[in-house]
Amino acid sequence: MKKISVLGSTGSIGTQTLDVVRKHRERFQIEGLAAGGNTELLLAQVHEFAPSKVSVASRDLAERIKHELPSGTQLYYGSEGLVEIAAGTEAELVVTAVMGSMGLPSTLAAIREGKTIGLANKETLVTAGHLVTALAEEKGVKLLPIDSEHSAIFQCLNGERHEDIERITLTASGGSFRDYTREQLVNVTVEDALKHPNWSMGAKITIDSATMVNKGLEVMEAHWLYRIPYDRISVLLHPESIIHSFVEFRDSSIIAQLGNPDMRVPIQYALTYPERWESPATRLSLAEAGKLNFREMDMERFPCLRLAYECGKMGGTAPTVFNAANEVAVARFLRKEISFLQIEEIIQEVTDRHETIANPALETIEEADQSARELASRL
Amino acid sequence: MKKISVLGSTGSIGTQTLDVVRKHRERFQIEGLAAGGNTELLLAQVHEFAPSKVSVASRDLAERIKHELPSGTQLYYGSEGLVEIAAGTEAELVVTAVMGSMGLPSTLAAIREGKTIGLANKETLVTAGHLVTALAEEKGVKLLPIDSEHSAIFQCLNGERHEDIERITLTASGGSFRDYTREQLVNVTVEDALKHPNWSMGAKITIDSATMVNKGLEVMEAHWLYRIPYDRISVLLHPESIIHSFVEFRDSSIIAQLGNPDMRVPIQYALTYPERWESPATRLSLAEAGKLNFREMDMERFPCLRLAYECGKMGGTAPTVFNAANEVAVARFLRKEISFLQIEEIIQEVTDRHETIANPALETIEEADQSARELASRL
Repeated sequence: MKKISVLGSTGSIGTQTLDVVRKHRERFQIEGLAAGGNTELLLAQVHEFAPSKVSVASRDLAERIKHELPSGTQLYYGSEGLVEIAAGTEAELVVTAVMGSMGLPSTLAAIREGKTIGLANKETLVTAGHLVTALAEEKGVKLLPIDSEHSAIFQCLNGERHEDIERITLTASGGSFRDYTREQLVNVTVEDALKHPNWSMGAKITIDSATMVNKGLEVMEAHWLYRIPYDRISVLLHPESIIHSFVEFRDSSIIAQLGNPDMRVPIQYALTYPERWESPATRLSLAEAGKLNFREMDMERFPCLRLAYECGKMGGTAPTVFNAANEVAVARFLRKEISFLQIEEIIQEVTDRHETIANPALETIEEADQSARELASRL
Repeated sequence: MKKISVLGSTGSIGTQTLDVVRKHRERFQIEGLAAGGNTELLLAQVHEFAPSKVSVASRDLAERIKHELPSGTQLYYGSEGLVEIAAGTEAELVVTAVMGSMGLPSTLAAIREGKTIGLANKETLVTAGHLVTALAEEKGVKLLPIDSEHSAIFQCLNGERHEDIERITLTASGGSFRDYTREQLVNVTVEDALKHPNWSMGAKITIDSATMVNKGLEVMEAHWLYRIPYDRISVLLHPESIIHSFVEFRDSSIIAQLGNPDMRVPIQYALTYPERWESPATRLSLAEAGKLNFREMDMERFPCLRLAYECGKMGGTAPTVFNAANEVAVARFLRKEISFLQIEEIIQEVTDRHETIANPALETIEEADQSARELASRL
């Protein structure tokens, strides 16, 4: 029986994590669930999975649901509640699927308690990769990636030696505007941007796919997860999203991971690693797919990706600022305050104005995050 | 310093094995070389690599070269000489790249001495898979495949559990006549058949690619190498030969091995396993390749593949008879005694007339092989 806590249980990754648990009820036990404001779904999850501890975003929300919980379930709230679910249960594995920078302290708390991390919170490695990986190494904690690209790389590295890695390549579908020229991007709408060709995801990440910021953040994560310098991480345009990513070794051999786009597969792999269990995912038929296409990534067409590499190489607080500026810009685009192309202009401007601080502590990261957000909301 | 013997050192796999050794001279030492009749090349190899023992096909050939050998090199000949190179040196790894059934006793001898096998002789597993794998298991000997497809599967299985394997898929380029209909095959010539689209190989294996017999033999080898039932081994048409083969696991995840067609890569992998070393092979660019195509294998179009599955499932002496009938038929086609389509007719006829003997000992295998050859040369 594997004991698991889920941070962000009502989001897309959280609900799919519980889907996986549901398929293997006899082999998993849910110890803790943390959600934001979707108390209705959280309550249903609590009644189904009977965790020992749950947490919601605020005291108000906690007050509202406290009489609806089973007697065996303890209730927490806020950022302290999140840390309690991350570090204060008997879970051996914690899925960190909360969005945004609040995921960081809870992930660090779980690592400190020696819990294996099923990592789905991007900010953890983007903003504090140096702190998180150092702590994980100190505690002997495994960071198991849940993102399909990073799970692919992780699987391709099974049984291989780190020194044999030549290059890591993340594939990118190209997002909603893959075949648009720069000129055609001028007048695209929020509605256009939200139509992702392959994956059904939240609004923020769908926009991030269209700007290629998402791939930029993944490059930064790959840098920390696999300890590979940026000049050995590539991005390749692959419209079908069937090859999820691949590793080239120094003998020129390439190992790739393939499958239909279905987040339950990488989620389950993190939950069952190093084993593989039956999955309800539809099996890939390459004969049915017929062909796979690839083309070079164009950094002029996708300047946010170039910028992500630059910020990643700069290191320190630069990735935090890149990420914060993007979050604000995307929110503003979704509120129709700015155009699609202004997203990249804002990120460029905010990162240009930032003076990078090397090896930042958590507070320094938070300050850089805050000031980047303020600037991004004013531009 | 890894000590190696090469059986069949003047053939295609043998010379490429020595190419790999040449690139890493400081890490490999050649202990033994066995060749057939190409004494000129063998002598050049002996002077370059200074093995302690060499062997040639016959006493006559041995007499002819004995004065040209360096003083430290002992000379052997015939099938006993082959066994001496396989089992009587200090080599820890023996590359078995001799062609035909003579590869079997020497491979068994090497396994008996506990030597790791770099397996390039097809007959070893096709005709005696049950004996070879049982002995290898008893002696704790690793069989490291050198064929590009089997090396691909072997690499994909790194760090994975056998029980998690759902299916193995061997890719097939389709050979010289991939896009021909059955009708168009009626009048094809030897010259047409020898034009393989992707790999530059010997005549026999190029014809075997066009008839799909080669893939059938690979299916049989995969069955023994990876202990997978035939109904979990597939063949997929993939004209570019870039995905060399892949494994599907029960969680629906697929791990594939890719690269440009270059036999030095799988050869080197067998020599350096579990490490990977620098290789002179040209690196694959998927962006340059642009697209990869796949289509279902048509068993009506390629009846030899269907027949191979049938013989494989039947087991016992059936695969030996399939292989022997094919060897004779291909030789007759190359001598222009029969047409291309008669190759499959002969295999069909010979296997139809054979009464399979289960669990055959070596002598029984040899008898089945001989009588199949006699019949195939008469039909």
